[in-house]
Amino acid sequence: MRAPFHEPGGNAFLGSVNQHRTVSTGVNKIRITGNRESAPDNAVEMPLRVRYAETDQMGIVHHANYLVWFEASRSEYCRVHGINYRQMEKDGMMLPLAEAHCQYVSPAFYEDEVIIKTWVISLKRSILRIGYEAWRGTDLLARGETVQVLVNTVTRRPMRFPAEIEEKFMRMQAPE
Amino acid sequence: MRAPFHEPGGNAFLGSVNQHRTVSTGVNKIRITGNRESAPDNAVEMPLRVRYAETDQMGIVHHANYLVWFEASRSEYCRVHGINYRQMEKDGMMLPLAEAHCQYVSPAFYEDEVIIKTWVISLKRSILRIGYEAWRGTDLLARGETVQVLVNTVTRRPMRFPAEIEEKFMRMQAPE
Amino acid sequence: MRAPFHEPGGNAFLGSVNQHRTVSTGVNKIRITGNRESAPDNAVEMPLRVRYAETDQMGIVHHANYLVWFEASRSEYCRVHGINYRQMEKDGMMLPLAEAHCQYVSPAFYEDEVIIKTWVISLKRSILRIGYEAWRGTDLLARGETVQVLVNTVTRRPMRFPAEIEEKFMRMQAPE
Amino acid sequence: MRAPFHEPGGNAFLGSVNQHRTVSTGVNKIRITGNRESAPDNAVEMPLRVRYAETDQMGIVHHANYLVWFEASRSEYCRVHGINYRQMEKDGMMLPLAEAHCQYVSPAFYEDEVIIKTWVISLKRSILRIGYEAWRGTDLLARGETVQVLVNTVTRRPMRFPAEIEEKFMRMQAPE
Repeated sequence: MRAPFHEPGGNAFLGSVNQHRTVSTGVNKIRITGNRESAPDNAVEMPLRVRYAETDQMGIVHHANYLVWFEASRSEYCRVHGINYRQMEKDGMMLPLAEAHCQYVSPAFYEDEVIIKTWVISLKRSILRIGYEAWRGTDLLARGETVQVLVNTVTRRPMRFPAEIEEKFMRMQAPE
Repeated sequence: MRAPFHEPGGNAFLGSVNQHRTVSTGVNKIRITGNRESAPDNAVEMPLRVRYAETDQMGIVHHANYLVWFEASRSEYCRVHGINYRQMEKDGMMLPLAEAHCQYVSPAFYEDEVIIKTWVISLKRSILRIGYEAWRGTDLLARGETVQVLVNTVTRRPMRFPAEIEEKFMRMQAPE
Repeated sequence: MRAPFHEPGGNAFLGSVNQHRTVSTGVNKIRITGNRESAPDNAVEMPLRVRYAETDQMGIVHHANYLVWFEASRSEYCRVHGINYRQMEKDGMMLPLAEAHCQYVSPAFYEDEVIIKTWVISLKRSILRIGYEAWRGTDLLARGETVQVLVNTVTRRPMRFPAEIEEKFMRMQAPE
Repeated sequence: MRAPFHEPGGNAFLGSVNQHRTVSTGVNKIRITGNRESAPDNAVEMPLRVRYAETDQMGIVHHANYLVWFEASRSEYCRVHGINYRQMEKDGMMLPLAEAHCQYVSPAFYEDEVIIKTWVISLKRSILRIGYEAWRGTDLLARGETVQVLVNTVTRRPMRFPAEIEEKFMRMQAPE
């Protein structure tokens, strides 16, 4: 069982809200299962230091920056696994986002040392699904998920992942 | 029935991907219903012009900016409905995000004129759920949803929305 | 003579600092003349509303955003004067920055309505120099200046402005 | 003598432009001396990896991000020298920018490993002047300078730096 999360000052913040795992609305239905597991052991970890520019007047990291952090950690995942995304773009492939989701558990503050954990959830044909967690020490700050589609740069249509790249994304452990 | 979405050059982009409405993974389950309705008639509309700084090297608007746009349109929603968020913060209330979701349907480009439609999905006790759509003319660019929690600035704990503010958020039509 | 600038709460903020017009250091010498004139009458004006994401934990607009605003107003200048920058890029030209300068006079706050005034200072061969002012009502918030270089996208080397584009940049009044 | 700067692909980019060290215009005069020296030996160095979100559709790092990088390296400078800026804010002091200047020498690209060098140029009463350089290996990417003013958070008026903090900023070498 995971202990409740606290911000540095000791107050639970959004923890109680995030127990509402299943939500249903008339317009946009998003259901997130309650038995969400944490990052697997082979997740790639990327450390970062919170920049002043990433805060907002609430005194916490602005929520949009988590998507930027997830993206940076995705790049780190690629580097660790020998995937050269810069070269992929030169080779006429792009990985735009089709979907992004982030659940904010506890706020991050200026100068915090944050670890982003990143792992591949699935890769099917042209669709890559990646999971993320942001941690400050033993505090979970956020969980996220993105869906990306491999697209041919010229036609802008989805294309299958080349086998070699797919294999690297799906490798359970980073090569030594 | 909604026609397929096209980018200005005429290529469908991510449309085909987004038919995968229900997704289930071992780690993070997000289910989005297929019969998603569009913005209601009383949605507040905010126009914006895409800034160069909002593009990335893919030549499209970077995905994190949609959260910034949704937030700006939320501010517009508040102004239209007589909700003074600046004053709310001075009165010791904050509305941090607990959750954000965005589905990217078609990319936006530099200089595009985009309309963000914003509406309240629900407001229950301390939890405010808002829906968004981003449009360029008749092209749907993105759909989003955020969950926010009203928090006492000092205790950083969730608090009920004051009745007067709740009433303004839930009013179906903006006051004349 | 220009009156001292005040933030909404009534306090002078940085005004007294900015009287130090001429500065000389051993390493980087920047000299700004004291008799700086304000924007000319034919400056193009672009209104914007301060976004929450643009604030930082100081409770004011983060300073880097002014460069983004200046850029957006530069785009507006181009549109008003019939310069199609999107087309220029397609035609193999780019306008990267060689230099940017901003002087922060008075802070901007969330939801403020700001006007950016933009005008061409000079255009010589490949070098475009533009001036900016940011205003909130009668409060000057910032002054800026950028230097851009017209570059051939393929060779990445400076190129002369085509006569037709130069003429549009230098036209004193926007065409009717 | 410094060798001409090259981007990875081998093209000089903005180098030739930046020889125009002294510029004078009718409206905004900025003069930058030609004999600009490079960062001193005791500059604090902060490494960073270019994020995808920091690029724009020109395929290079958007110019506003350099101010964000400079700020992050300023924080690093403070940490190295035992200056706790987070605590300074809690103690009622703020360091807003009065002025920022950046000269872009050579573009940075996605995934580049960049080093920001930071050093104090001068600290006089309430005014702190800091210099920056951004490097990728032996390529100088940008030079910058900021002017900040120590401000009392409540009165929002400039205040002298406390002697203890001034001493830390001016110390030539970081303490062991």
